[in-house]
Amino acid sequence: MEKDRLLAFSDGVIAIIITIMVLELRPPHEPTWGALAVLAPKFLSYVLSFIYIGIYWNNHHHFMYVAKSVNGGILWANMGLLFCLSLVPFTTAWLGESGGAAIPTAVYGVSLILPAFAYLTLQTLMIRTDGPDSALAKAVASDDDWKGKSSPALYALGIALAFFYPPLSWALYVLVALIWLVPDKRMERVIDQRVS
Amino acid sequence: MEKDRLLAFSDGVIAIIITIMVLELRPPHEPTWGALAVLAPKFLSYVLSFIYIGIYWNNHHHFMYVAKSVNGGILWANMGLLFCLSLVPFTTAWLGESGGAAIPTAVYGVSLILPAFAYLTLQTLMIRTDGPDSALAKAVASDDDWKGKSSPALYALGIALAFFYPPLSWALYVLVALIWLVPDKRMERVIDQRVS
Amino acid sequence: MEKDRLLAFSDGVIAIIITIMVLELRPPHEPTWGALAVLAPKFLSYVLSFIYIGIYWNNHHHFMYVAKSVNGGILWANMGLLFCLSLVPFTTAWLGESGGAAIPTAVYGVSLILPAFAYLTLQTLMIRTDGPDSALAKAVASDDDWKGKSSPALYALGIALAFFYPPLSWALYVLVALIWLVPDKRMERVIDQRVS
Amino acid sequence: MEKDRLLAFSDGVIAIIITIMVLELRPPHEPTWGALAVLAPKFLSYVLSFIYIGIYWNNHHHFMYVAKSVNGGILWANMGLLFCLSLVPFTTAWLGESGGAAIPTAVYGVSLILPAFAYLTLQTLMIRTDGPDSALAKAVASDDDWKGKSSPALYALGIALAFFYPPLSWALYVLVALIWLVPDKRMERVIDQRVS
Repeated sequence: MEKDRLLAFSDGVIAIIITIMVLELRPPHEPTWGALAVLAPKFLSYVLSFIYIGIYWNNHHHFMYVAKSVNGGILWANMGLLFCLSLVPFTTAWLGESGGAAIPTAVYGVSLILPAFAYLTLQTLMIRTDGPDSALAKAVASDDDWKGKSSPALYALGIALAFFYPPLSWALYVLVALIWLVPDKRMERVIDQRVS
Repeated sequence: MEKDRLLAFSDGVIAIIITIMVLELRPPHEPTWGALAVLAPKFLSYVLSFIYIGIYWNNHHHFMYVAKSVNGGILWANMGLLFCLSLVPFTTAWLGESGGAAIPTAVYGVSLILPAFAYLTLQTLMIRTDGPDSALAKAVASDDDWKGKSSPALYALGIALAFFYPPLSWALYVLVALIWLVPDKRMERVIDQRVS
Repeated sequence: MEKDRLLAFSDGVIAIIITIMVLELRPPHEPTWGALAVLAPKFLSYVLSFIYIGIYWNNHHHFMYVAKSVNGGILWANMGLLFCLSLVPFTTAWLGESGGAAIPTAVYGVSLILPAFAYLTLQTLMIRTDGPDSALAKAVASDDDWKGKSSPALYALGIALAFFYPPLSWALYVLVALIWLVPDKRMERVIDQRVS
Repeated sequence: MEKDRLLAFSDGVIAIIITIMVLELRPPHEPTWGALAVLAPKFLSYVLSFIYIGIYWNNHHHFMYVAKSVNGGILWANMGLLFCLSLVPFTTAWLGESGGAAIPTAVYGVSLILPAFAYLTLQTLMIRTDGPDSALAKAVASDDDWKGKSSPALYALGIALAFFYPPLSWALYVLVALIWLVPDKRMERVIDQRVS
């Protein structure tokens, strides 16, 4: 029950975060293709952020499913993750508004790296709570967790490159999204074993 | 549990999409009937979009109920559907703001045809996962699925006609909504059989 | 399951409606009591609408709890109720913005009378579905449903009086809210009997 | 079921409140660090309010979990709490917009003291309903509830000090948040006993 309510609350917050980003796509005042084309940077940054929030929801979902229990520390680590994710609509809007300028590109990368660290913190706390022999610990350990470890490095590279050539940063952000879009076989395997 | 959480998340996103559209109805600055009448195009496009989002929620609801399982591909196909639906508040606002001009009318049609294709993709993936003998496959096959196949054609016609005479497009969009408002007996029959 | 998902979706939409109204309370640009006092009409109309939406949620909740089943017609009657409720944030904002002028006061009354009719339609459909001997039918019949019948009349009176002296309309709207705030003993009694 | 739906609705409203606050962080028009720095007061007030709403969600969650039953009075006391919490996005926005001026700082304190009283009212009603020997009553009594009693006093002090030196008020608001961030061992102990 505790875990269920934490999940339901997190799902609610993530559902709102992923949806309010579209409020930034303000209808143009003129009914022309040109007026629509002006929105392209906002639209593209919305697409990327939608995918990122979707990835977090998906991973959170798999991860929490395997976990056994929650406590106060886990609850606040989860709140920290939700807080970091709640900044994404803001950085997405700034990135789109600026048409992809250097500083908003870097700040967008910061808003990607923050939830990555918050997620790692949550993961660490949950494995400590469930114990080293838990299904959760085995699932994370069995695959070296290379995605979780390489993503922050790629985000950091993206942040640094923003000050030289922002399109390289965008490419890195897209690359990390693609890495995560490939389903996490690890977790699915463990879940399948538990169900069967 | 996996399916339940996917459903709950989808319901949350759809509930937000259907509700934030009303934020576009800004209160007039003057307390007169004339100021209210100016909002008529916005109101009418809101009504139509509310019905469309309601239809998607209803169909999604019936469809997912019959389905047996979800996997990573289905989860992302579902995210794709939610993304397409999330564009409807934007196109609705533009349609209303422009008072039904040609290009916003066509773009609105695009925002109807996109979730239709996303829904077909989701349906195809789910039938492939559940298998050709599943309750889901039988339910879809037993009725030729004429609504699902005719709707994109009617949307496409609406998009094309927008450049000649937008009111014809509006009539087509309303027509498709009416087609779907008739309850899908197919699904209800299968559900009844499963329950009894 | 069908009923549960309908309830969860309705709860989600109502939770969003009741909360987005506060977005209309824009922070003043000056940090003075005078700037805050200007918001008083908006605040008061928010309080009233919050109570109204809360009453609808509460009644919907009791009513659906007693009901046995839902079908396509009930689902769309429920969507109609949610649509009518979704107009309340708009009419509340207009009422507050205008400081309680005649036409916004009347239109606010219309936005109260519409969900009342939608609710009666939903109630009628559900009783027809559950049958005249159902727990639902008995619960509604046993008390003559005087609140449900007197409310639309009082709203209509409020709408008419708005064109002569708006404060009388406000008093009527507050009165109806007070009538409903008294808990509906009928339903609670029937629920208690079912549980025990 | 009654309690579950009340919890789900409350969670939905709280999830929306905690998330819409970020809408106040409008993206700057210029892509510079200076433009971002201007948002610092808004960002800091968002962080504080996010933590406060999180604390309320957390306490509400623990408290309701131990409770046995709900009735009409409890339902409306809960609505009162949600209403008070719904004012926090407004006062947060004003505090941030004003850069921490005296009156917005005091009004922010009022928006913290109001839900504190609403929560105490809800708690009192629930203990009266569950009875003096209930798990809920014991949980609250066993620890003197010093946090619940000291918080309103500290908020009141913060409100008063706002008119002399606002930074002292901010420090007090942060202090109360820190007091609550320490997990409430009382409740967790009682829950553990019930589960085991």
